[in-house]
Parts: sequence; structure tokens; C-alpha cells
Amino acid sequence: MLARMTTKYFWEDFPVGQVREFGAMPVTRDAVLAFAREFDPQPFHVDDAAAERSLFGRLAASGWHTAAMAMRMMCDEYLLESASLGSPGLESLKWLKPVYPGDTLSVRLTTVEARPMASRPEVGLVRSKWEVLNQHREPVLAMEGWGMFRRRGT
Amino acid sequence: MLARMTTKYFWEDFPVGQVREFGAMPVTRDAVLAFAREFDPQPFHVDDAAAERSLFGRLAASGWHTAAMAMRMMCDEYLLESASLGSPGLESLKWLKPVYPGDTLSVRLTTVEARPMASRPEVGLVRSKWEVLNQHREPVLAMEGWGMFRRRGT
Repeated sequence: MLARMTTKYFWEDFPVGQVREFGAMPVTRDAVLAFAREFDPQPFHVDDAAAERSLFGRLAASGWHTAAMAMRMMCDEYLLESASLGSPGLESLKWLKPVYPGDTLSVRLTTVEARPMASRPEVGLVRSKWEVLNQHREPVLAMEGWGMFRRRGT
Repeated sequence: MLARMTTKYFWEDFPVGQVREFGAMPVTRDAVLAFAREFDPQPFHVDDAAAERSLFGRLAASGWHTAAMAMRMMCDEYLLESASLGSPGLESLKWLKPVYPGDTLSVRLTTVEARPMASRPEVGLVRSKWEVLNQHREPVLAMEGWGMFRRRGT
């Protein structure tokens, strides 16, 4: 159980145009197999021979695992110290390249839009673009969507 | 490790307008905590007291956990017996209602669009809508996106 951290980031701390880069998450074979066996046991995520015959060429992480790893990097970088109220959803999610065991992932976060919530003045909406990069700086996952944060001083 | 199953579903088996309902996945407290501690340790996903103070009202599953559980139901229902080639991504993902320990989830899958892939005639694209429902038949997650399947006889 994590202790409640100090709130450092409010809605005002995500201005439009801000770019943050963070994270260095190693993708291990054990983690790829554990996630896939539980949630996405398609042959190319759990079986080396089947993966070699697939479009991936070798064992690749479930796209949902990549998204979950990105979420963990976001939590560690800013969400756990933020006045986050959750997210209503994403407007797009693109799996651009396979993620393989041995890769190291990072996140580039860009604030695309920010506005107060009409119905709840103490809450602000932030529309963000998250790009997950591998160690070659190639984007492997791109997402755009909304987060809700409490406003400073409310 | 799962054995390679017989291929039963090709692109042709997902005609536009087809609706399938399936799955009955119990959401356990242990699974909610295990996923959240690994991937999304925001207070409302890992701490009862913090969750009570949040918009969720009580401990709620990470939205990524809900998506991963939906993926597992899709695998068990048809993907593992299909000529699936993976997915390029989603056009939307909406977290509509919280998912709580004790809930039971199911999936309603609708084929929205289907067309051969211009660049690869042996592959077909299927645009699907996935609605994840709780035991009250309330949608908790809605996604729309694309899957690639080999065509029959190729």
C-alpha cells in the first residue's frame, strides 16, 4: 500500500504546450508472459514459435500491457503527486510498433488542451497526448485523451 | 502455455451488424489490488479510505484492468480460435462507470464495419464496438477500434 503523497500538481500545472519526458521501464520476458497469460493469451504473446510465424516476428508484449506500463510510468512521474480525479476516456489509442522483451520504454507527455469543467468549477480538464517510446526513440504506442484534476486552491 | 487452437473464425465471420454477447468475469478485490499495485497505484485503486473520499466512492478497478479483463473475455470467446493478426488501435475508449470488486463483467461485441485491406488482399479489417457491461447491464467501458484477420482460404 502506498502512502498518500503530497499534492504537488493541480490542473494549473498542465499548461497547453507543456512537454514532459520520463520513465525508463525495462520490458522483461517474464512480465510479458505473465501479463499475456492472464489477460491476452494470443499465440504471438505467449508462444515463441507462434510469434515467429506472426507479423510480430518474435514474442511481443500485449498492447494492453504496453498501455499498463505507460500508466505506471505516469503514476510514478506525476499522477501520484497530483490532484487527479481519474479519466473519462481516450479519443485514440494506436499501437504503432511491437514491444519486445529487452526493450526499455519511456513516455513523452504533451498537453494539447486545457479547460475548466463547465459543470464543476473546482475541476479542470486536460487533454493530453502520450507517446510511448522504445530505446530507439521509436513511438510504439500513442494515445490522446482526457484527465480531470482539481484546481489549485479549491 | 496454451496449445494452438483450431482456426474457426476468419475475417468473413465478422459481418457488419453482427452482435455477440459473452463472458461472465468476476471482479475480485485481490485482482483489483494486484493489478493496481503493479500498474496504476492511484489512491482510489489501492486504498479503501482514499477511495471513499474520491469520485468513485469506494475501491474501484483501474480502467486499464477493466480493458484487460475485456481482452481476456474476447480471447476466450473467439480470438484464440480466430485468424487474428492483432490490432492497429482504437478510435475511442470511454470509461463510463466505475468497476467495483464484486462486479461481474460481460462483453457485447458489434461489428460496425468490415473491409479488405487495400495493401494486403489476404487480410481483412474489422471495425468493432466493444461494450463491457456489469451485472446490472450497465455499460462500464465502451471501445471502438480495428482488428485484422486473415481471410478464409488465403
